[in-house]
Amino acid sequence: MGKRIVIALGGNALGDNLPEQMIAVKQTAKAIADLIQEGHEVVIAHGNGPQVGMIQKAMTELTRSDPEKYIPCPLSVCVAMSQGYIGYDLQNALREELLDRGIVKGVATVLTQVEVDPNDPAFSHPTKPIGAFMTKEEADKMVAERGYDVIEDAGRGYRRVVASPKPVSIVEIQSIRDMVEAGLVVVACGGGGIPVFKTEGHHLKGAAAVIDKDFAACTLAQQLDADCLIILTAVEKVAIHFGKPDVQWLSTLTPAQAEKYMDDGEFAPGSMLPKVQAAVQFAQSKEGRTALITLLEKAKDGIEGKTGTLIQQ
Amino acid sequence: MGKRIVIALGGNALGDNLPEQMIAVKQTAKAIADLIQEGHEVVIAHGNGPQVGMIQKAMTELTRSDPEKYIPCPLSVCVAMSQGYIGYDLQNALREELLDRGIVKGVATVLTQVEVDPNDPAFSHPTKPIGAFMTKEEADKMVAERGYDVIEDAGRGYRRVVASPKPVSIVEIQSIRDMVEAGLVVVACGGGGIPVFKTEGHHLKGAAAVIDKDFAACTLAQQLDADCLIILTAVEKVAIHFGKPDVQWLSTLTPAQAEKYMDDGEFAPGSMLPKVQAAVQFAQSKEGRTALITLLEKAKDGIEGKTGTLIQQ
Repeated sequence: MGKRIVIALGGNALGDNLPEQMIAVKQTAKAIADLIQEGHEVVIAHGNGPQVGMIQKAMTELTRSDPEKYIPCPLSVCVAMSQGYIGYDLQNALREELLDRGIVKGVATVLTQVEVDPNDPAFSHPTKPIGAFMTKEEADKMVAERGYDVIEDAGRGYRRVVASPKPVSIVEIQSIRDMVEAGLVVVACGGGGIPVFKTEGHHLKGAAAVIDKDFAACTLAQQLDADCLIILTAVEKVAIHFGKPDVQWLSTLTPAQAEKYMDDGEFAPGSMLPKVQAAVQFAQSKEGRTALITLLEKAKDGIEGKTGTLIQQ
Repeated sequence: MGKRIVIALGGNALGDNLPEQMIAVKQTAKAIADLIQEGHEVVIAHGNGPQVGMIQKAMTELTRSDPEKYIPCPLSVCVAMSQGYIGYDLQNALREELLDRGIVKGVATVLTQVEVDPNDPAFSHPTKPIGAFMTKEEADKMVAERGYDVIEDAGRGYRRVVASPKPVSIVEIQSIRDMVEAGLVVVACGGGGIPVFKTEGHHLKGAAAVIDKDFAACTLAQQLDADCLIILTAVEKVAIHFGKPDVQWLSTLTPAQAEKYMDDGEFAPGSMLPKVQAAVQFAQSKEGRTALITLLEKAKDGIEGKTGTLIQQ
């Protein structure tokens, strides 16, 4: 019996630059096609760390080359561009892999905006470095003219830092739902989604932020009433005492156990911690929902209960 | 009775840079919402001339800033990025305009690849300048290392030129059809689509080309079995003797008349000529199909037969 699955792809599924991406997405497509071949409905969310960094750097270089003509490009627009950049390769690789297996199914990447809350505490403490290194003069100018938050990065220069707020809801959810129900394989919420605030009524405004792709995938999975959220990463299972002689790999994890391990500081912030948090949030959101954290190439084995860490109530 | 309409938006519907784009798309959204409010199914294609030029220039500046790290970005990838860049603003403006009118309808931008023929004669004579000006040294390097075609542009430096082949088919047509039938307003074929060649079997490879958006919209309209193709531009009607004292504005045009006027050189290449060609191609493709060329803000009046140039057999 097919499940509705939302997959969150990590950096290793995409590579760090264009040549790497073109190779990486082929492996990624195989893992995803395995699930589609089993009859599951699949929606794919993905990160964009290196890609949006590259695009932001390119847009900064453009402004440097002709400051009269090119204003600095808002981060939300860079995220939109990264959805095009990554989605093109990803949907293409998936389309080819499905056709190679004789599966005729439309694959479509949909530009996705994700609403965030202007009162999210993340906006008071922006921590995520983004884009090119700047000189002190450039940094001061950006602070004065555009209100950027800037940090000095270990003697290598100055960098802009932005907030990483929690997703509130997916703006294009109805479109994505209609597409899934029409039988399409959908790529959505690229880079965690284009972050937007609600302004007056239903109007939206780009936010200078980046959204964690695991949390965005979790929100997407909840709003699509998915059965399973799969977070694909560089390890087969979640571990406690990670990197120590008494490392312990976990096949199952309840929200209560996860909370305890998180309190104990078992999971690295910015690495395994947000994945476990997103998995727990999804597993707790409704009875019967499960989350799975495993290696990209183990997605099918994981969904069959053979490996990975299953998070369920 | 609602019609299925494909709209091709020209440069004036989008503006030349980001601040202009954010304003222009609001007017564009009103014109499109007028049609949706009348009960028509609408699919939107658009150009990307200034936008893909800007993105290509940004990616060139990025490579200049660190040639070891960043290889030149293929044009097809720049087109994909431009679909994100423009689609974000366009879908957002349309979503707001519809909600302002109390119309609850999903709007979605879908990344679109368009197949072109490697034997298209356009590839023997690339004519479309693209991206940043280069010095002679940079141009020679690009020719030697990457096989670019390059022209000297009126003493202002060297520029890459690429082919503008005819579209053969829309790769994501099934996805777009499913989305239209699910009731969504779809933005597709941005910038004429990401140009791709078929390689072995069903595999695709990015082509160094740009596709004319009017021809892409025409192919899209044919493949969606649309009733009407609307090409929105900067004039209310097509004219013969354009710019002369005896200018004659045309309310209707048959394919036969259009062929004669084209033979007489009445329509400017790169301007009105491709629009008339695309309109004629659509009107001839099946009985009952009509094309309309008019001003953006006259779209609704045009579809009601009040203005514009109607092209039909």
